Amino acid sequence: MENERQHMIERIESVIDAGDLSPIPNVIEDMRPADVSDLLMALPVEKRRILFGTFERELASEVLTFVDDGAAREIIEELEESEIVDLIELMASDDAADIINLLPDGQVQRVLRRISREEYEDVRELLKFDEESAGGLMAREVMKVRRDSRISDIIKLLRSEEGSIEHLQNIFVVDLEGVLVGYIPILKLIVADPDDIVGEVLVSDFISVDVETDQEEVASIFAKYDLYSLPVVDSRGKLVGRITVDDIIDVIEEEATEDITIMAGTGEEEFWERSPVKVSRARLPWLLTGLFGGIASALVMNHFKGSLESVLTLAFFVPVITAMGGNVGIQSSAIVVRELAVGGVSVVRTSGKLLRELKVSIINGIVLASVLLVTVSLWQKDYRLGVLLGVCMMMTILWATLMGAIVPLLLKKMNIDPALATGPFITTSNDIVGILIYLGIATLFIDWIGRG
Amino acid sequence: MENERQHMIERIESVIDAGDLSPIPNVIEDMRPADVSDLLMALPVEKRRILFGTFERELASEVLTFVDDGAAREIIEELEESEIVDLIELMASDDAADIINLLPDGQVQRVLRRISREEYEDVRELLKFDEESAGGLMAREVMKVRRDSRISDIIKLLRSEEGSIEHLQNIFVVDLEGVLVGYIPILKLIVADPDDIVGEVLVSDFISVDVETDQEEVASIFAKYDLYSLPVVDSRGKLVGRITVDDIIDVIEEEATEDITIMAGTGEEEFWERSPVKVSRARLPWLLTGLFGGIASALVMNHFKGSLESVLTLAFFVPVITAMGGNVGIQSSAIVVRELAVGGVSVVRTSGKLLRELKVSIINGIVLASVLLVTVSLWQKDYRLGVLLGVCMMMTILWATLMGAIVPLLLKKMNIDPALATGPFITTSNDIVGILIYLGIATLFIDWIGRG
Repeated sequence: MENERQHMIERIESVIDAGDLSPIPNVIEDMRPADVSDLLMALPVEKRRILFGTFERELASEVLTFVDDGAAREIIEELEESEIVDLIELMASDDAADIINLLPDGQVQRVLRRISREEYEDVRELLKFDEESAGGLMAREVMKVRRDSRISDIIKLLRSEEGSIEHLQNIFVVDLEGVLVGYIPILKLIVADPDDIVGEVLVSDFISVDVETDQEEVASIFAKYDLYSLPVVDSRGKLVGRITVDDIIDVIEEEATEDITIMAGTGEEEFWERSPVKVSRARLPWLLTGLFGGIASALVMNHFKGSLESVLTLAFFVPVITAMGGNVGIQSSAIVVRELAVGGVSVVRTSGKLLRELKVSIINGIVLASVLLVTVSLWQKDYRLGVLLGVCMMMTILWATLMGAIVPLLLKKMNIDPALATGPFITTSNDIVGILIYLGIATLFIDWIGRG
Repeated sequence: MENERQHMIERIESVIDAGDLSPIPNVIEDMRPADVSDLLMALPVEKRRILFGTFERELASEVLTFVDDGAAREIIEELEESEIVDLIELMASDDAADIINLLPDGQVQRVLRRISREEYEDVRELLKFDEESAGGLMAREVMKVRRDSRISDIIKLLRSEEGSIEHLQNIFVVDLEGVLVGYIPILKLIVADPDDIVGEVLVSDFISVDVETDQEEVASIFAKYDLYSLPVVDSRGKLVGRITVDDIIDVIEEEATEDITIMAGTGEEEFWERSPVKVSRARLPWLLTGLFGGIASALVMNHFKGSLESVLTLAFFVPVITAMGGNVGIQSSAIVVRELAVGGVSVVRTSGKLLRELKVSIINGIVLASVLLVTVSLWQKDYRLGVLLGVCMMMTILWATLMGAIVPLLLKKMNIDPALATGPFITTSNDIVGILIYLGIATLFIDWIGRG
């Protein structure tokens, strides 16, 4: 499959290089829009634009909803405003809003004024919401009926609008004020009697979310209840839209990517940003934190200059102490951060986790400190430095583990993204504390060690 | 919502503490199985068992499919074999196979012999497959019809089996040999004429996966094509099962968790493992790698003892060099690893990415090296050490970035999980190389620096 794809990419590239684009419609004719998008993304930027230019309007509109934000922005930049309007007209309201969000500020109003009234109203509603909220995820298009309709009415409606709602799972039932009162799964339409009154056969025990709910919480509701579609309501319970599971998969991948990039000390834009300057700007704050942390470590070492002058060997083991503090800290912080992201950790489970981390760090501390003690004693042919290093390693590991486990929990309490506690922040602070512990204790016992 | 949950946990705990369990069925009566599982997981282990014991068979069976593997194992351990058999009988084949996979080896055959013939055959089939393959994910229960059936036959079938297949999306169509030839979305059943022949209205352009396909690839197919259900076929194209999107959400979260835990230098068992000894065993190999890396750093420093003795200040900046090598290495490796996990990176995009990483590291290198140069020159009131550190920082950053970007790609080529390239491995090797570069160059110019 990978080979087939590579072959297809080469074929398209050679057609573009040859300058005659007429064979392209034939080549991509049988491909699914998702595969065409994939092909497009694999090409260098200039060729992307050329290939995109060959697409029929329907395909172009679909492809635009599949490619990543960076690529979509680059493509729209090159289009005439009337072309953008045409493509947006073909999209569901949620996709249309996503694309409009990529337009430069000045263009948004102009494009909005040119799209059809119906789409305009849906999109304008959606643009009000935070992109990372239920309102930002939902589509306005929902299939809804009144309580007093009959099953046969719904079937008639579906026959007339066949295919107009993608991934239709449930028909929502609303009262006279538009308040959601239940739903009918489409499977039930098949087995129910066409004469049944909707209000009598609906499922009234439904799950819905408020339009302001954060996307991370929406995703965890989908995951927890194995949902395929979820109605969105406003503060008065009125049905305003619907979120489907395919969009949730994107959210889950996005949130995991966000955690990973934050852990690594950078930002999500990494993935589609082509400009090295912008990527560098995302990474630099973290690196500068690390750099100043490093300079602080140097100051700490300078403070213990006397000890280092009398026993230079002490300096050799600074990297061991800092490396282990960093590793241990990342282990426990990553676990806590991920647990906070995936499953709502309760108070009981949190204190259990802290206790477990403490026990783990005692075991690991004993093993690592012993290995270090033995290795150093053999190498230096003196047990004193070994004992000192073993003790300091043990303390550094305990400290780093606890910091790693507690800081994300504190951040969560303060409503700050706990992922910030992993990565450069935790390694840098553990570096400094580790060196302080190590050289501090060494200085206290410098006479004893120096005798070696 | 969080408060409500906390309140519910406290209520259940106090009921259990009081010793009279009779109010429990009333308390949980209106709760969804997913919420009951959530409540169960929030309790300490002993109370979990007591609460689980109060569940009716149907609820117990459902709850068991919702809780994590660790909790499920702890619960089944306490059950009689006949109870386990009863609970498994109520499950879909994929859930049943998952639970059987948690049983101790000796018990598997005994339990299999006691379940009903039909379920036995489905489960035995499923147990053959790797848990992380399409075969391990799928359920054997599918709704399938022949090409020559009529739409009305399907509707009759659905009426008779209502509710027997969860999350039914498509009716699969097979030929006389059982080979998959197409499908009918259930929505189509509503709008089609009941007299239509299945073979004439089916969708023949379908996506399917082979039973051996790795779960990560299955997940990326779901994500790419926005699927809700995917048929699984054997090597001859025969329909053998079906995977639904709710299971894929679990896979995507699991794979992200795996990447994060590997990055942090530990294992996935972290999340449900209660024994500190086992968690410690998962983390120790990484920590020992780090420890020996640290000892290697000490050896490198020992090798440059002469230089350090003549200019002790050199030692103060070792932590800056190692910290920055580690931070930069993690940034670029994490990005490449995530990109490899989420989107199949093509050759074109990879070489573009490497070039971008190189440019980013040059920009970051210049900024960080300059900051370090100025700070150190001011502090030490001598520009020489500053210049040396600036140059070494630049080189370390270039090296660390390239290692971070290239190693995951190489691992991927060798079919090794690229996530192994992040975390302790990359930081440790960058530590050693960074110190080598730094003290090596310092030694070459030691006379010039020493003059400071």
